[in-house]
Amino acid sequence: MITTDIIIIGAGPTGLFAVFEAGLLKLKCHLIDALPQPGGQCSEIYPKKPIYDIPAYPEILAGDLTDKLMEQCKQFQPGFTLGERAETIDKQEDGSFVVTTNKGTQHKAPVVAIASGLGSFEPRKPLIDNIASFEGKGVEYMIKEPELYRDKNVVIAGGGDSALDWSIFLADVAKSVTLVHRRNEFRGHLDSVEKVQELKNLGKINLITPAEVTAIYGDERLEAVEIAKKDEEAIRMETDHFIPLFGLSPKLGPIANWGLEIEKNAIKVNNALDYQTNIPGIFAIGDGNIYPGKLKLILCGFHEATLMCQAAYQIINPGKRYVLKYTTVSGVDGFDGTRKEAPKAVVKAIQ
Amino acid sequence: MITTDIIIIGAGPTGLFAVFEAGLLKLKCHLIDALPQPGGQCSEIYPKKPIYDIPAYPEILAGDLTDKLMEQCKQFQPGFTLGERAETIDKQEDGSFVVTTNKGTQHKAPVVAIASGLGSFEPRKPLIDNIASFEGKGVEYMIKEPELYRDKNVVIAGGGDSALDWSIFLADVAKSVTLVHRRNEFRGHLDSVEKVQELKNLGKINLITPAEVTAIYGDERLEAVEIAKKDEEAIRMETDHFIPLFGLSPKLGPIANWGLEIEKNAIKVNNALDYQTNIPGIFAIGDGNIYPGKLKLILCGFHEATLMCQAAYQIINPGKRYVLKYTTVSGVDGFDGTRKEAPKAVVKAIQ
Ligand SMILES: Cc1cc2nc3c(=O)[nH]c(=O)nc-3n(C[C@H](O)[C@H](O)[C@H](O)COP(=O)(O)OP(=O)(O)OC[C@H]3O[C@@H](n4cnc5c(N)ncnc54)[C@H](O)[C@@H]3O)c2cc1C
Ligand SMILES: Cc1cc2nc3c(=O)[nH]c(=O)nc-3n(C[C@H](O)[C@H](O)[C@H](O)COP(=O)(O)OP(=O)(O)OC[C@H]3O[C@@H](n4cnc5c(N)ncnc54)[C@H](O)[C@@H]3O)c2cc1C
Repeated sequence: MITTDIIIIGAGPTGLFAVFEAGLLKLKCHLIDALPQPGGQCSEIYPKKPIYDIPAYPEILAGDLTDKLMEQCKQFQPGFTLGERAETIDKQEDGSFVVTTNKGTQHKAPVVAIASGLGSFEPRKPLIDNIASFEGKGVEYMIKEPELYRDKNVVIAGGGDSALDWSIFLADVAKSVTLVHRRNEFRGHLDSVEKVQELKNLGKINLITPAEVTAIYGDERLEAVEIAKKDEEAIRMETDHFIPLFGLSPKLGPIANWGLEIEKNAIKVNNALDYQTNIPGIFAIGDGNIYPGKLKLILCGFHEATLMCQAAYQIINPGKRYVLKYTTVSGVDGFDGTRKEAPKAVVKAIQ
Repeated sequence: MITTDIIIIGAGPTGLFAVFEAGLLKLKCHLIDALPQPGGQCSEIYPKKPIYDIPAYPEILAGDLTDKLMEQCKQFQPGFTLGERAETIDKQEDGSFVVTTNKGTQHKAPVVAIASGLGSFEPRKPLIDNIASFEGKGVEYMIKEPELYRDKNVVIAGGGDSALDWSIFLADVAKSVTLVHRRNEFRGHLDSVEKVQELKNLGKINLITPAEVTAIYGDERLEAVEIAKKDEEAIRMETDHFIPLFGLSPKLGPIANWGLEIEKNAIKVNNALDYQTNIPGIFAIGDGNIYPGKLKLILCGFHEATLMCQAAYQIINPGKRYVLKYTTVSGVDGFDGTRKEAPKAVVKAIQ
């Protein structure tokens, strides 16, 4: 059982900044995310696209925003349960909550912050009958650990940025990479498309288009896939892994059954105070909440996370008065022993 | 009469970011600030100090934050009335407001956003009887236009960063710079103190310590000051300018008499919706407002400014429905004809 001060469900920009704000209040956080990497929509949907309305960033790539938020909260040593979906929540007799994932990992804390955005990102799966029985046995919909593919034969399916970028990346890692797409045209960043063309010319990516993976075979594990090229006879290809990358779509999912007030697929909160839900001790911040005038913007999530942490502090330290301190004036003490502080003014005579 | 969509009182971080958010909604802004430069507390009190809790900036100097916010809103061409204090507000028959400064400049708009922080920064003045009659006639408490001092004789009084930094800056501009401080010790950044020492050694700054300016003389304009050095006879020194830099202190000031609900020196707002005050059409955002759970943090001002702009849009475009657009998806069209947009994905065949 993982124990912490605040369980944060969702490691998008809102969840990551909550770690930092909690840290300033000496509260520890543990993040759960269905995705294999932090950053939420920013890292999953548009990591290479610029955002123009992050305050004081005239322009920042969504992926760089994630990196900066990770760097900012690093000193507060957040825990991560990645690639798992928060499934159930149970209130304990001592008032704390236990959150359990679809893989059975348990987390316990007095406060839960739901920063679940548009929902848990779930992969779109190809329509192949027996695919479910090979999940985790050679079929993966997200790449969590690229080393898994070292010196293996890999078949990737898809025509967007994920399929392009992972084909490029794995071309250097895997024994062979086969990229299958149902059209000749790919949709993505120009440099990714050009890079795949180059690797294909070099024989480092085996491209099969227009084509589809129509069947998968194996005994205990995946052993082969069937690839049907348009107007040609289907071929059977031996492979260790089949990775369909057809995009992820967010689903509110199990959180909808936690007894929280839901409106328009989002969790209702008390925006006049602290973004708490109808269940005391459970907060909802960022894209996943709703209140009058709500804007689904990153900068709003930052503010909501900050106010939420103040309320969490009161729950965790009942009766203790908290006096706001400016980071500039008080510095920042990391849980890792680091300290950041402004250079002090000197008092010095001029002769 | 200056006309605009939103009059913003206060060009601190909150006011500056409001310009950007308003611009996204095609609303124009005009800022009024008592200070000669934008940035509010950040530029006036601690421009060279790091802030650690601006989201996605693990560290940023307060002065750099101001520069970034200026750069971000530049494309929306805000107007500025600097070095003037908003003094009165009058509601017009057409529902709009006219805001007049202490220098008589008038501004008209359907919406007013008070982003006045801790208040209008007012200089601490030396206790010299007739000083008021020389204000603007050789006595200045803030430096608005450094060129004013070119080839002039200047006496600066003070022992902090402003006195140090302006002495350094004017040493290259003015005919002579005399720095008077009532102690030998200065309090400021080490490099500033060392630079003044160096310029003194080079004869470019005339340092008189421990001493005070005890009287000022002149007919129409300032002509000379009296400088009393401890245990010595006071000397009279001819000068064109006397600039006492004893710090600025913020005062809510005239806004307190505008009929707004005030609590703890701040303006009460409806935080459950849009940060509007008790007077429809007047909003208060940033450090200058108060509501349950209020935190006087820069990042909170950013959020408040953003929600305020949505409400301003409804006042200015009654009945028009606004659909939130992501900057990443829609790009940003500046009022200056510039356009920022994400590079488009290509759709391209791989042969
Ligand atoms: C193309 C595009 C462009 C955009 N442009 C802008 C822009 O210019 N400016 C702007 O401000 N915003 C923009 N946005 C919106 C912005 O990305 C979101 O506001 C932001 O990502 C919300 O952050 P969040 O942390 O609240 O949620 P998210 O980023 O959605 O992260 C939520 C995370 O929670 C996880 N999660 C949810 N439920 C569970 C569960 N049960 N178990 C485990 N994990 C779970 C999800 O997997 C996800 O990783 C854009 C969005 C898109 C798609
Ligand atoms: C030493 C120090 C360290 C700090 N550290 C941090 C930190 O680490 N993190 C953080 O988030 N915050 C910090 N703060 C607080 C932060 O600076 C403020 O929250 C922020 O400046 C508020 O921005 P604002 O735009 O709302 O108001 P301000 O910055 O106060 O700007 C308000 C402006 O309005 C003008 N004004 C007011 N009334 C009038 C009028 N009637 N007419 C004309 N102009 C008027 C003022 O002159 C001023 O320029 C710190 C503050 C100080 C002093």
